Amino acid sequence: MAAKKHDFPVAQIRRFLEPGPVVLVSSRHGDRTDIMTMGWHTVMEFSPSLVGCVISSANHSFGLVRESGECVINVPTAKLTDVAAKIGNSSGAEVDKFAAFGLTAEPAQLVSAPLIRECHASFECRLFDDALVERYNFFVFEVVKAHVARSPKHPQTLHYTGDGVFMLAGKTVRRKALFTKVS
Amino acid sequence: MAAKKHDFPVAQIRRFLEPGPVVLVSSRHGDRTDIMTMGWHTVMEFSPSLVGCVISSANHSFGLVRESGECVINVPTAKLTDVAAKIGNSSGAEVDKFAAFGLTAEPAQLVSAPLIRECHASFECRLFDDALVERYNFFVFEVVKAHVARSPKHPQTLHYTGDGVFMLAGKTVRRKALFTKVS
Repeated sequence: MAAKKHDFPVAQIRRFLEPGPVVLVSSRHGDRTDIMTMGWHTVMEFSPSLVGCVISSANHSFGLVRESGECVINVPTAKLTDVAAKIGNSSGAEVDKFAAFGLTAEPAQLVSAPLIRECHASFECRLFDDALVERYNFFVFEVVKAHVARSPKHPQTLHYTGDGVFMLAGKTVRRKALFTKVS
Repeated sequence: MAAKKHDFPVAQIRRFLEPGPVVLVSSRHGDRTDIMTMGWHTVMEFSPSLVGCVISSANHSFGLVRESGECVINVPTAKLTDVAAKIGNSSGAEVDKFAAFGLTAEPAQLVSAPLIRECHASFECRLFDDALVERYNFFVFEVVKAHVARSPKHPQTLHYTGDGVFMLAGKTVRRKALFTKVS
């Protein structure tokens, strides 16, 4: 079980994505649903709230995202380390990943792809720009709705380093006094 | 002082960028040099080694990078927390950031932009694709040469959450046995 999530301002989702966690991307097209583990993403703009990411065309999720033009970006924490690894090492063409890995699909509000209940945050996304999809499998999404658990304030996110090794989010340090110019 | 850096395979730089650290981007055009702090970046391909990132056109570095088509992406660690914050809150139009923040410029091998000696890793980059620069200030670079310190193996990188707060890289967990399909 995860804490209940609440509405969160879409212009502030950098709070969770900019530190660079592995995310779980859920997608649906028709009656097909999938989840993939993704580490190649970046915030691109506050408002509209844009996120760019690479979804390999070799991944079963690619077709679902490409055809539906939607997905949900979910942020898992350390307790889902094994699940994130297993999702990244199986194919949605063969496995129902929600059932196989004990995850709960919840209805999103603005997209057909499901939220993953066990994640700390879930961001409903619509395809915003596909100019680089053909060249790099690079999608630009707009986050149209954000859901975030209120606690913990600094979730222990997973950060992938390759070679089967994750770095877990560590302590936070505050340098607010030095921030005079930018957010 | 930082540890001496050594040649590192460009196809493996995801090791340092995929976890999502704040990086320091150094640039040079003619006799003008700058450094900026950047949190919006993603790995896009192993080979060629591609990195996509947002460099705001409001930043002094934008012109230097745009005109030279080059930069160096440097990865700082926790001891440079204050420096990273200060670099992000000052303008290269007014300040020589190497001098102002006690950083050492070292010559790169393949680009004119300097490496930052005090950083754990430095990646020499050439502009690879500017298709999304006008729309989103989004640059796709190819890493053409990589320099990495041999120790520590897991540097304590800085990860920006917004609002003046950094998360520091924490402990690592190994799940190699679960990685059967992908790297």
